[in-house]
Amino acid sequence: MNKDETILIVGLGLMGGSYARGLTKAGFNVIALDKNKESIDYALANGIIKEGTSESTEEFLSKADYVIITLYPTEIVKWIENNQDKLKGNAIITDICGVKACIVDKAQSILRKDLELISTHPMAGRELSGVKNSTESIFEGANYLIVKTDLNTERGVSFAEEIAKTLKFKTISTVSVSEHDEMIAYLSQLTHCIAISLMNGNDNDELCRFTGDSFRDLTRIANINENLWPELFIDNKEKLIESIDVFVKELNELKDDIRSDDYDALKKKMISSTERRKKFNKIKDAD
Amino acid sequence: MNKDETILIVGLGLMGGSYARGLTKAGFNVIALDKNKESIDYALANGIIKEGTSESTEEFLSKADYVIITLYPTEIVKWIENNQDKLKGNAIITDICGVKACIVDKAQSILRKDLELISTHPMAGRELSGVKNSTESIFEGANYLIVKTDLNTERGVSFAEEIAKTLKFKTISTVSVSEHDEMIAYLSQLTHCIAISLMNGNDNDELCRFTGDSFRDLTRIANINENLWPELFIDNKEKLIESIDVFVKELNELKDDIRSDDYDALKKKMISSTERRKKFNKIKDAD
Repeated sequence: MNKDETILIVGLGLMGGSYARGLTKAGFNVIALDKNKESIDYALANGIIKEGTSESTEEFLSKADYVIITLYPTEIVKWIENNQDKLKGNAIITDICGVKACIVDKAQSILRKDLELISTHPMAGRELSGVKNSTESIFEGANYLIVKTDLNTERGVSFAEEIAKTLKFKTISTVSVSEHDEMIAYLSQLTHCIAISLMNGNDNDELCRFTGDSFRDLTRIANINENLWPELFIDNKEKLIESIDVFVKELNELKDDIRSDDYDALKKKMISSTERRKKFNKIKDAD
Repeated sequence: MNKDETILIVGLGLMGGSYARGLTKAGFNVIALDKNKESIDYALANGIIKEGTSESTEEFLSKADYVIITLYPTEIVKWIENNQDKLKGNAIITDICGVKACIVDKAQSILRKDLELISTHPMAGRELSGVKNSTESIFEGANYLIVKTDLNTERGVSFAEEIAKTLKFKTISTVSVSEHDEMIAYLSQLTHCIAISLMNGNDNDELCRFTGDSFRDLTRIANINENLWPELFIDNKEKLIESIDVFVKELNELKDDIRSDDYDALKKKMISSTERRKKFNKIKDAD
């Protein structure tokens, strides 16, 4: 990648906007496509992108050397199907979707032979949506996953790595589609299921007067985009259900220790959780 | 309360130290008792307290007009039993313990007739321990519970309120012992059980390279004091087990929606959790 080349963002919401801001600040030539004209106008007015449109014309799409698709899961393959003929020869495409098995194989199998899809997953976000709430600061110190298949080339992987470094991600890891979906089921999807259930499990309106930071921490992501996440859960249902079951089993064991007044077993579980948690601090988390 | 009066902190750890710092800064005459002489020396050297000792002498304890006990749950009643004879007439005592049924009734029943115990629960803390990590900033904007019984007087309640206001707590609520323990089972104890189980449920060492903020948020309190919390869980076991069961039922319902591809049910649960979560922001959380 060099700074004369053009990066097209497809879908200018929270994530697309955050990518656009970071890449524009780094000096790249960033353009965007979004069906919502207001988002494009906002991004142009605020110098987040150089050019933008709501029209998927060949004239516009063929400008891009690289394409970052930040659409909802169900829209990604459709977009590629409908628009790949308008793309420049040898363009590299990435998606940033939170589930992979349901996207990557399909997309790679229908792709024009000279194009490459290298799938990625930035482990970052915030509980807000839209380009107006976007900020490249969400990427700093976060993890970045490159989901590589047999069809990916060194050029594709290098592109993904360069994007990650430019946006200041901390750790870049390369994984298979199946490894990705399994890890994400436990780390991201299960945690969202827990937050939703914790928030919905008690309808006492007085609770907020009694709460401390622990409940706030565990329910922050109960503020969730209800248009995106049902898709993500269902698209990865087998691995997610397995993760929920593993977690519930663990929680019920803890309950049994409490019921039988087993101080030592509880203490052991707490020592283990404290020890393991230390590895998960971000650089900016650490004391 | 006036600034000539003396407040005794019993137990100079994270919480005791934070109380001492805040009350000293507000101009009160703060003294402390802790069996660990190093903690006392540190607090004296750093101006956190005016006087301190490791010896429970009548000469020292009788100086206090108010006593704030920040000991572990099992030590509170014992301390009162062993030391109340050395306290000044009409002194007011508070504890800050996270469970109440197992403490308050017992303590109030054995208390010298001229003394008063007004039980309180500051909903604040941090994942560190010891006076060196104490800071009064943990109280700012947090909730404060006064656990009132029939034996409490207006003077006792006013004392508790004044402490809360001095330390800049946001919302002060008065509750019964039983209400307290029920709320705390769900809001605080269940969340700690979830964090521990989430952290212990997957022993893949690679997980930390894949994690995002959601997993970090949900496991922050998996870093837990293993000497304190087994007591808290077991002392409130009936209500805590009920809370775990309610939560697991809710989570399993969500799982069923995922299994049956029920987008609408999932969406409805997410709209509800998002709506409810809004009430739980701290002032300093709000965007």
